[in-house]
Amino acid sequence: MPSISEKGRHMPASPIRKLVPYAEAAKKRGTHVIHLNIGQPDIKTPKVALDAVRNHTVEVLAYSMTEGSEVYREKIAAYYAKKDIHVTAKDIIVTTGGSEALSFAMGSIMDTNDEIIIPEPFYANYNGFATAMGVKVVPIVSTLENNFALPPIADFEKLISEKTKAILICNPGNPTGYLYSKEEIQQLAALVKKHNLFLIADEVYREFAYEGRQHHSILQEEGLEDHAIVVDSVSKRYSMCGARIGCLVSKNKEVIQTALKFAQARLSPPTFAQIASEAALETPQSYFDEVIVEYASRRDILISELRKLEGVKVAVPQGAFYCVVELPIADADDFAQWLLEKFEMDGNTVMVAPAAGFYATPGLGKNQIRIAYVLEKDQLVKAVQILGKALKVYNN
Amino acid sequence: MPSISEKGRHMPASPIRKLVPYAEAAKKRGTHVIHLNIGQPDIKTPKVALDAVRNHTVEVLAYSMTEGSEVYREKIAAYYAKKDIHVTAKDIIVTTGGSEALSFAMGSIMDTNDEIIIPEPFYANYNGFATAMGVKVVPIVSTLENNFALPPIADFEKLISEKTKAILICNPGNPTGYLYSKEEIQQLAALVKKHNLFLIADEVYREFAYEGRQHHSILQEEGLEDHAIVVDSVSKRYSMCGARIGCLVSKNKEVIQTALKFAQARLSPPTFAQIASEAALETPQSYFDEVIVEYASRRDILISELRKLEGVKVAVPQGAFYCVVELPIADADDFAQWLLEKFEMDGNTVMVAPAAGFYATPGLGKNQIRIAYVLEKDQLVKAVQILGKALKVYNN
Repeated sequence: MPSISEKGRHMPASPIRKLVPYAEAAKKRGTHVIHLNIGQPDIKTPKVALDAVRNHTVEVLAYSMTEGSEVYREKIAAYYAKKDIHVTAKDIIVTTGGSEALSFAMGSIMDTNDEIIIPEPFYANYNGFATAMGVKVVPIVSTLENNFALPPIADFEKLISEKTKAILICNPGNPTGYLYSKEEIQQLAALVKKHNLFLIADEVYREFAYEGRQHHSILQEEGLEDHAIVVDSVSKRYSMCGARIGCLVSKNKEVIQTALKFAQARLSPPTFAQIASEAALETPQSYFDEVIVEYASRRDILISELRKLEGVKVAVPQGAFYCVVELPIADADDFAQWLLEKFEMDGNTVMVAPAAGFYATPGLGKNQIRIAYVLEKDQLVKAVQILGKALKVYNN
Repeated sequence: MPSISEKGRHMPASPIRKLVPYAEAAKKRGTHVIHLNIGQPDIKTPKVALDAVRNHTVEVLAYSMTEGSEVYREKIAAYYAKKDIHVTAKDIIVTTGGSEALSFAMGSIMDTNDEIIIPEPFYANYNGFATAMGVKVVPIVSTLENNFALPPIADFEKLISEKTKAILICNPGNPTGYLYSKEEIQQLAALVKKHNLFLIADEVYREFAYEGRQHHSILQEEGLEDHAIVVDSVSKRYSMCGARIGCLVSKNKEVIQTALKFAQARLSPPTFAQIASEAALETPQSYFDEVIVEYASRRDILISELRKLEGVKVAVPQGAFYCVVELPIADADDFAQWLLEKFEMDGNTVMVAPAAGFYATPGLGKNQIRIAYVLEKDQLVKAVQILGKALKVYNN
């Protein structure tokens, strides 16, 4: 039998996937599982986007333009302009999700064994794309005690080698919920300019900033034009994760021309999803205002409930809809499985994402979980109560 | 300014893309351009697929399953069963186009600098995926004189090295239109078993076989289960290239499990496109019968018209909807540009795809072009007349 690749062997499996059979078994036993593990918002997709697809007039579902239609890219540029980010349609390539934008970015600027520095914990799939591309992730630790703020620039400098091609941040962060300040972005900008690196920012949670905080995009940094590459997506913004539309944005023409060659190989992004995404840009601001208010109140109640639990520490998220929680346990993988396999409270249990999968450094995050607050508030309260009871039982 | 990757530098640009500005300029001058260069069928997408999307009941456009919904995969398996290909839903991963299936296949079985043998001329984007993955394409020449039949197995054996991991065929072929016989498939099967290689078959044109010929899938070969990986797509079958839905099929569980990890990194294939693709499976056989009759008659008229031209040679396609044509010229790149820049006949000209981009061996195919017969017959006749006149003018 021919053997699979080393790359394939090292591709990380989804940290949640191995829990799925236990969750299914629990459901079969009649236990209700509250999912704190999923980043799929329950918020309705804007009607304007769904209706555009319902009213499509397609007769031949043809390839679209490789880089996305010019009209759509111009509308995206107009969306950015409203956020005080000034780019043109030519600086944008429409991609199949933020995922593909990240793949194109990595492929365009990195070769096999090149290095990319990423503050950890980070979105687990960064590891997958890096492995697929043969690129090495060099993690730099950010800590719960410090609310997952940017690690000191001196720590980054220690990690920069001849192989380092880029620094990647997620802002606001999945799984940390941390929103980098303008000052932190400026520190990173100075660093990448000094060392002639790219700075990639995954800004898919841009809209989700709480307590009136302002998101500062790397594209707003003057003088960073040749270094800045933004990965974006409609998935979370419009609660349309299933569309699979994102974009890559850079003022660096060489990057865009190169990414376009990667894009040409896969022909075009999905047409129906582009119809939905173009229409979604007409979503009124009131939709976002309501969504932000909802997430903010979910966040508040989740954090205040978690703080009632003994031995539990939580970083207060300032954006996105995740938080990393430290539990008074040794092994969150074991605990997460136990929750599904052995525990219930009044017929309910919870599924959580063990945080170790969000770290690249072995051993880190073993006593942490990620919670996504994409559920109704009463469900969140109930889930934390179950978690509290479960911790007591588990630790005895 | 930070520099792009070597990989990015070597990513091939689309062979047609550099002609696009000349085509646009021609149109601006008022010249009508007949596109023989495009593989986008003009055939209407089945109504059942378009209606399914029109009638969608989505409220939250959520991620689908990473491997595609179980219901859809079961229906795909049922489609294969009708073709006498026996697989289950578990052998299938739904992908974002055949493109992604090929990427997953390459990533799952090949590491940087591993080699894949591909009969040339081949679909140009294979080069793109190989470059993105850091994999080396080893071409083996098939010839127009031989109708692009499978090169002798002895020639394959000369190219097999320790680095060789797979052989990739496109059956029926883009750009050749060649349909491998059962005997050829069996020769390849014996070869990959002998050398413990994978055999990847891009079978996206399966339905398009002419003169009653039967397509023989590598999945029908007994004893090839651990070696065979099929790349498939709805794009051409249902004239829905813009959906971006395909699948990877293999009975080799390790391959599927590994490809699934690549799939997890990008989360899920596009939801609306899956709705369309699932519904498309209900397309009645009469649709295909009509389409095949139409393509066959287009093929017949195209070939008979081309044969009237002095010095023109053409391989007779047995499947798909392309043919490779040899012209009495030295440089088809130059000729294709000249057609758009300098030539017209009664206000018309043609755009062709120079065939050099379909070869990996430098210098091959320079006097060849690829023609896609996805146009109405009267347009094809007119296009060949223009081509004939143009050749006379160009050669004087």
